[in-house]
Amino acid sequence: MAKKQQVQDAKGKLGILIPGLGAVATTVIAGVEAVKKGLSQPIGSLTQTGSIRLGKRTENRTPKIKDFVPLAHLNDIVFGGWDVYEDNVYEAAVKAGVLDTHLLKAIQPELEALVPMKAAFDKNFVKNLDGTHVKEYDTKYNLALAVMEDIKNFQAKNNCDRVVLVWCGSTEIFHEAADIHETLEKFEQALKANDSRIAPSMIYAYAALKLGVPFCNGAPNLTCDIPALVQLSKETNTPIGGKDFKTGQTLMKTILAPGLHARALGVQGWFSTNILGNRDGWVLDDPDNFKTKEVSKLGVLEDIFRPDLNPELYGDLYHKIRINYYPPRGDNKESWDNIDIFGWLGYPMQIKINFLCRDSILAAPIVLDLALFIDLAKRASMSGVQEWLSFYFKSPQTAPGLRPEHDIFKQLIKLENTLRHMMGEDLITHLGLDYYEDIAADA
Amino acid sequence: MAKKQQVQDAKGKLGILIPGLGAVATTVIAGVEAVKKGLSQPIGSLTQTGSIRLGKRTENRTPKIKDFVPLAHLNDIVFGGWDVYEDNVYEAAVKAGVLDTHLLKAIQPELEALVPMKAAFDKNFVKNLDGTHVKEYDTKYNLALAVMEDIKNFQAKNNCDRVVLVWCGSTEIFHEAADIHETLEKFEQALKANDSRIAPSMIYAYAALKLGVPFCNGAPNLTCDIPALVQLSKETNTPIGGKDFKTGQTLMKTILAPGLHARALGVQGWFSTNILGNRDGWVLDDPDNFKTKEVSKLGVLEDIFRPDLNPELYGDLYHKIRINYYPPRGDNKESWDNIDIFGWLGYPMQIKINFLCRDSILAAPIVLDLALFIDLAKRASMSGVQEWLSFYFKSPQTAPGLRPEHDIFKQLIKLENTLRHMMGEDLITHLGLDYYEDIAADA
Amino acid sequence: MAKKQQVQDAKGKLGILIPGLGAVATTVIAGVEAVKKGLSQPIGSLTQTGSIRLGKRTENRTPKIKDFVPLAHLNDIVFGGWDVYEDNVYEAAVKAGVLDTHLLKAIQPELEALVPMKAAFDKNFVKNLDGTHVKEYDTKYNLALAVMEDIKNFQAKNNCDRVVLVWCGSTEIFHEAADIHETLEKFEQALKANDSRIAPSMIYAYAALKLGVPFCNGAPNLTCDIPALVQLSKETNTPIGGKDFKTGQTLMKTILAPGLHARALGVQGWFSTNILGNRDGWVLDDPDNFKTKEVSKLGVLEDIFRPDLNPELYGDLYHKIRINYYPPRGDNKESWDNIDIFGWLGYPMQIKINFLCRDSILAAPIVLDLALFIDLAKRASMSGVQEWLSFYFKSPQTAPGLRPEHDIFKQLIKLENTLRHMMGEDLITHLGLDYYEDIAADA
Amino acid sequence: MAKKQQVQDAKGKLGILIPGLGAVATTVIAGVEAVKKGLSQPIGSLTQTGSIRLGKRTENRTPKIKDFVPLAHLNDIVFGGWDVYEDNVYEAAVKAGVLDTHLLKAIQPELEALVPMKAAFDKNFVKNLDGTHVKEYDTKYNLALAVMEDIKNFQAKNNCDRVVLVWCGSTEIFHEAADIHETLEKFEQALKANDSRIAPSMIYAYAALKLGVPFCNGAPNLTCDIPALVQLSKETNTPIGGKDFKTGQTLMKTILAPGLHARALGVQGWFSTNILGNRDGWVLDDPDNFKTKEVSKLGVLEDIFRPDLNPELYGDLYHKIRINYYPPRGDNKESWDNIDIFGWLGYPMQIKINFLCRDSILAAPIVLDLALFIDLAKRASMSGVQEWLSFYFKSPQTAPGLRPEHDIFKQLIKLENTLRHMMGEDLITHLGLDYYEDIAADA
Repeated sequence: MAKKQQVQDAKGKLGILIPGLGAVATTVIAGVEAVKKGLSQPIGSLTQTGSIRLGKRTENRTPKIKDFVPLAHLNDIVFGGWDVYEDNVYEAAVKAGVLDTHLLKAIQPELEALVPMKAAFDKNFVKNLDGTHVKEYDTKYNLALAVMEDIKNFQAKNNCDRVVLVWCGSTEIFHEAADIHETLEKFEQALKANDSRIAPSMIYAYAALKLGVPFCNGAPNLTCDIPALVQLSKETNTPIGGKDFKTGQTLMKTILAPGLHARALGVQGWFSTNILGNRDGWVLDDPDNFKTKEVSKLGVLEDIFRPDLNPELYGDLYHKIRINYYPPRGDNKESWDNIDIFGWLGYPMQIKINFLCRDSILAAPIVLDLALFIDLAKRASMSGVQEWLSFYFKSPQTAPGLRPEHDIFKQLIKLENTLRHMMGEDLITHLGLDYYEDIAADA
Repeated sequence: MAKKQQVQDAKGKLGILIPGLGAVATTVIAGVEAVKKGLSQPIGSLTQTGSIRLGKRTENRTPKIKDFVPLAHLNDIVFGGWDVYEDNVYEAAVKAGVLDTHLLKAIQPELEALVPMKAAFDKNFVKNLDGTHVKEYDTKYNLALAVMEDIKNFQAKNNCDRVVLVWCGSTEIFHEAADIHETLEKFEQALKANDSRIAPSMIYAYAALKLGVPFCNGAPNLTCDIPALVQLSKETNTPIGGKDFKTGQTLMKTILAPGLHARALGVQGWFSTNILGNRDGWVLDDPDNFKTKEVSKLGVLEDIFRPDLNPELYGDLYHKIRINYYPPRGDNKESWDNIDIFGWLGYPMQIKINFLCRDSILAAPIVLDLALFIDLAKRASMSGVQEWLSFYFKSPQTAPGLRPEHDIFKQLIKLENTLRHMMGEDLITHLGLDYYEDIAADA
Repeated sequence: MAKKQQVQDAKGKLGILIPGLGAVATTVIAGVEAVKKGLSQPIGSLTQTGSIRLGKRTENRTPKIKDFVPLAHLNDIVFGGWDVYEDNVYEAAVKAGVLDTHLLKAIQPELEALVPMKAAFDKNFVKNLDGTHVKEYDTKYNLALAVMEDIKNFQAKNNCDRVVLVWCGSTEIFHEAADIHETLEKFEQALKANDSRIAPSMIYAYAALKLGVPFCNGAPNLTCDIPALVQLSKETNTPIGGKDFKTGQTLMKTILAPGLHARALGVQGWFSTNILGNRDGWVLDDPDNFKTKEVSKLGVLEDIFRPDLNPELYGDLYHKIRINYYPPRGDNKESWDNIDIFGWLGYPMQIKINFLCRDSILAAPIVLDLALFIDLAKRASMSGVQEWLSFYFKSPQTAPGLRPEHDIFKQLIKLENTLRHMMGEDLITHLGLDYYEDIAADA
Repeated sequence: MAKKQQVQDAKGKLGILIPGLGAVATTVIAGVEAVKKGLSQPIGSLTQTGSIRLGKRTENRTPKIKDFVPLAHLNDIVFGGWDVYEDNVYEAAVKAGVLDTHLLKAIQPELEALVPMKAAFDKNFVKNLDGTHVKEYDTKYNLALAVMEDIKNFQAKNNCDRVVLVWCGSTEIFHEAADIHETLEKFEQALKANDSRIAPSMIYAYAALKLGVPFCNGAPNLTCDIPALVQLSKETNTPIGGKDFKTGQTLMKTILAPGLHARALGVQGWFSTNILGNRDGWVLDDPDNFKTKEVSKLGVLEDIFRPDLNPELYGDLYHKIRINYYPPRGDNKESWDNIDIFGWLGYPMQIKINFLCRDSILAAPIVLDLALFIDLAKRASMSGVQEWLSFYFKSPQTAPGLRPEHDIFKQLIKLENTLRHMMGEDLITHLGLDYYEDIAADA
């Protein structure tokens, strides 16, 4: 049996700070408050409801994950955040229209007490939004300092032992890493020079990492996926994770595609369309912002199918993704996928998937799990990119030169084996020959 | 690195003998002939087109499976079989209506040369079929001896080095293991006593195992899933595998359900309906035969979701399966699934899957893979139940007291790690911390 | 212009009496009360929201139907009814789970005041229900007299000018018209002889018609579709209508099938499946009750496609309908249809329709419209079968020897032209040549 | 009974000339040849397989349409046409990939004999096409004269009694009627002045009408939907019809929407997406060409639902249409529609329609029917816009100031009653009271 890693206990309060108190953030905050009061259950959260198998199948050891690794308890969580609008969390949740008003009423006082701090905002990065509740600043460097002040004040005021940041803001316009993103030194110079290539999300990430506060990125933005900030995370011993919460259609894709690949079924085309009517849909109606999202969504199949290794199966795959703003749906995003596959001797078959999902309902438990796990990573002295959290991301950030792993099942094994490794349990290989044969004794 | 197992080379010819030369069998036979002639490709076959990752991601070692383990080559395969109708394989393939007549014409001589041997048949087990090409017999024991003669004659006549059997016959009526199935001794007594509880498929299995010939069961029948025949397989050092080829709707189920479970999403209901118009659909129109199929199909979700461990997520799951005979579809089975899931705070969502599949096209490569892998197992001195082949089965046969594993991704890892183990390669755990951290050095 | 028919005014109160105060009935009653209070809108009701074109297109005369023909006003409606359970309408509505509890609370006093009268019930006709609130009786004739007393007492107590009955009870088991249903005399003898072939629904219909009270049948039961009761309706100058409210899947079928037929597209197969979890679904889980429903649903395509006239298009149509009890859905019935069509040169195409409907929401406005229209018919001195109301029925009752018309568009024209005829307006033929040509002047 | 119109017999040969010998045109031509040889059936053609009810239902008079009105016989049809590529019809049909190669081989000589004439083409109107087989010209007027020569030569060479033109070319870019399209005089001046606002399709229409040759427009282009050409059609006593063949998604829309409207069900949103991979899909990938199509497709719902008359039901309807070029599909266009409806008290429901259609298979019989009916109209001395043919068009051309009728069922009644009127039969009103009541005697 492997040696157990050194992990500090989760004592005291954990602050979860969220840039972007929109539909997703208010849904997770309201949900945690409702769960605390016993009004509801944290379905969809692996940290709260998931179990993990330990040892051999015949041992029947399957504890809850939260009983296996030392996670912060829900009662120890304190929320806070920033937004470009000044609505408190109750008002924002009502406008988002995700949760039933009766549930919201039952936790109205807790939610009204949560008032956003002024946001670090730049309209050039989100053309379809008009922020009214934003910080004034001269240089982006000073803007970053102001965010650091916010974090420190929040921690002091709420008496938090630890803090993490999870970006739940909008998708920013598409831009690629430039030289100013290469090293920490250049990045800080650019901050001071007010370089237009520094996005608001980078300012939050910089501020957090500088303070040693873990950071997760829920949007497809570049944010901390640049060498400068990876370097900073190592220097301050801070774990980071990203990017783009894996919900809805892409979630389904990374479930289904590994299955088709497992069976060596060919794929000729995959057409994905979405209809949604929330603020996210409105922002993505701008082609520049959609581009960022599209890049994040397109890579998924390429990685899972590996057309380079299987040209006869996936070499001609035509992959097309459309997102359509459609107000009648509100937050209830709906996707329709048509998949043209082929099997034995090339005979064609079709799969159609219609997913009537709810965007924020799927994203909320991801925010919670990421916050709890990245806090755990910090206490386990893990720094830099946390690939074992790629389970939660559409577009996992990896070490330079390393292919991201999109197959959700490999991601899950990675996550679970990381937890087992952390706690000194045997890794699971599913070999299992020892249930049947002496031959496996030397495995 | 682990020690490599002793595996004999795949030299000489491999005979694949198939009880039941219907749609599935003729599709696999015609396909292999077409591939041999370069007319088509063996899509959907892991042994022919699949690759396997070896070592670390950065090593970029991903050979084809057929280049990694010593499998029989397609050119060394000889087919044969039994059927209750006297059509040769060409005629049967034309009637099945699965493959294009132009393709069949191009391999007509090869297919016409394949004439079925008379079947061991008992109408009590398949009420909707009327066999006309069946063996006369006094006792089932003598019937089994006649099948053994068939196998030996085929092997001699075709100069085969090795032979395997893959059951592609119809689903038999539902019956449960009785005392006569408990030990080999009782089973052989029952054969001699013409016991009505011995199904035709058991006679084939008994005959094969007695000769040390590996046996796979493609239907949900009991067949070799009884202690007596497991015992026989051990005694003659013969590998067995079963049961019920995993195609179509259940394939999709064992892909999707693990994904929902991975994300701790609750499931309130799963309604599955099928329309199909082939011989299989006609046989399953009889309630007794459908029962056998239904039992095979229903267990899948129970095992994957584990309502015993996750009652708040899966405790109320309502699972209903319908198969409808619908002639306009022929062999093109189509399924529609409605899945009622719930997420964060219990909010409901829906998934609809419409799979326009082709039953025999999905099943054919499974027959080929199973034949090649079970022949490999025999050469690797593996005997008894081969759980690593559960990847191919709706209802995997396991060691007594061991839960079957239905999650197709765990099944795949089991299969791949078995191959790696066999060839002395490191098992893959997807931990991957060493790409990022020194901390993993001691893993 | 045609002569206007004599139609009495709709003065005073109209009583709507409903046998079967379940999901449908409580939904229509609650809805009408909510509309009266201005809380909601009577969507789906042609009488309340529909318009009718009069004269030529260029005249732009399109009044609301309720402004064109003299219908009872919603404020003049009084509801009442019978049920086998003693719940008042508020309790029954809450149990039905169709309407939001907040809406129901807003009209709770009105609904609680509506207490069902004891039902005329016979468990032999609905095996899956156990009535606890039923009338004692010696002969069915006396049972009918008791129902007549109920009607008269209701009318007197509520000071109603007129009363109509609309059957919203369960589907009774399948039975065919026998000799006792042939004449009124035989029917009355059978009532007195307690003949087992007289269903409860017939007793309500007899009671109503005997009093000259119009009767509509919302279930597929025989009820008033027998010569004896048609005869009675003529004798008492009473209009009748039936049968089986056209909602959900059959509604879609009678919309889509006429479209395919219009374009001379062939149909090879039509597979219809349903999932629903309400009381109706539970009753239909009994094969005898399903048979009644199936007969009602199957005839639809036969009539629209006329395979006798178009054998090359519809001669081989395979039509299969399945209803599945599936509790997760409650009243939210969902259907999935697969339609195999073929076009030019026989090339196949497919249509899939997934209808996420709400059974009672679709049925409720039909109850209202039928009540108002059949009351209109009574005042217009129309008696016997009202074929112009076939628009609302799955299985329209017609004159002996006359094919029912299932095409919803022909049904609508029939309804509209009946109203035009009643009010002395020109019938619409859509010829319209006069907009273009002198040639049409002599049409 | 009405007086019969004067209609000349269909004696001699009918030439059908088609600008645009692509997928649709080659499918109709090949199909007619195959039907002539008894190899296939003209499914989907109302003129060939449809029947028409005459008189009362009880008369049972339902002749085939082709036996009721004097249409040209298939054996008397001669095809010809123009194209921007020089492929003969056999080559073009093979490239289109719509019909099975075995069918095409059986009629190869007939199809190879059909060589296109050089097209009148202007790349400014179809940016994604590069014509190589086009007429040289100095002025558009002379280009029109050249087309007239083509028509006359074709008629003489093939000994045709009559000729009709049906436009099957591509969708041209969006443009609106200008002053040059107002009168024939201005139009002819513009032709001579080479005005850029005269599209190629207008040149064909002008040429045909000038010669008294009937013209139908299968694309959404302006073409003959301008006052100048309507004027010309009247002057030369020539019938015209347009525009945009009603197939696929719009066909379904004009079937379903009237059904929802009939039942007064509200519609909140209608999202329509399409995937297709043929030349049509490629042309529509250009936004200017898509605009023309979109305008044609969007108007449909507006007309059927009449939000002006029913604001509470359709006032907020959000209608969105997307066409996606998706090569894996080829000509097999597939559509997915999501329709958000609401019923009683505003409760929401959803309808999803997935139509796996074949574009050219649906369009081909329309070409045939239009050619035969517009030839009939010519012989019946009907000139100008033939609104009774709106049954076949997405965007029916009408008299100025007259709303087009999109409801396919009203369109069908219009078509059928026009035929009845032409032959002196009673128009059908579906009133039908006379089957039931004496009251209707004075109708």
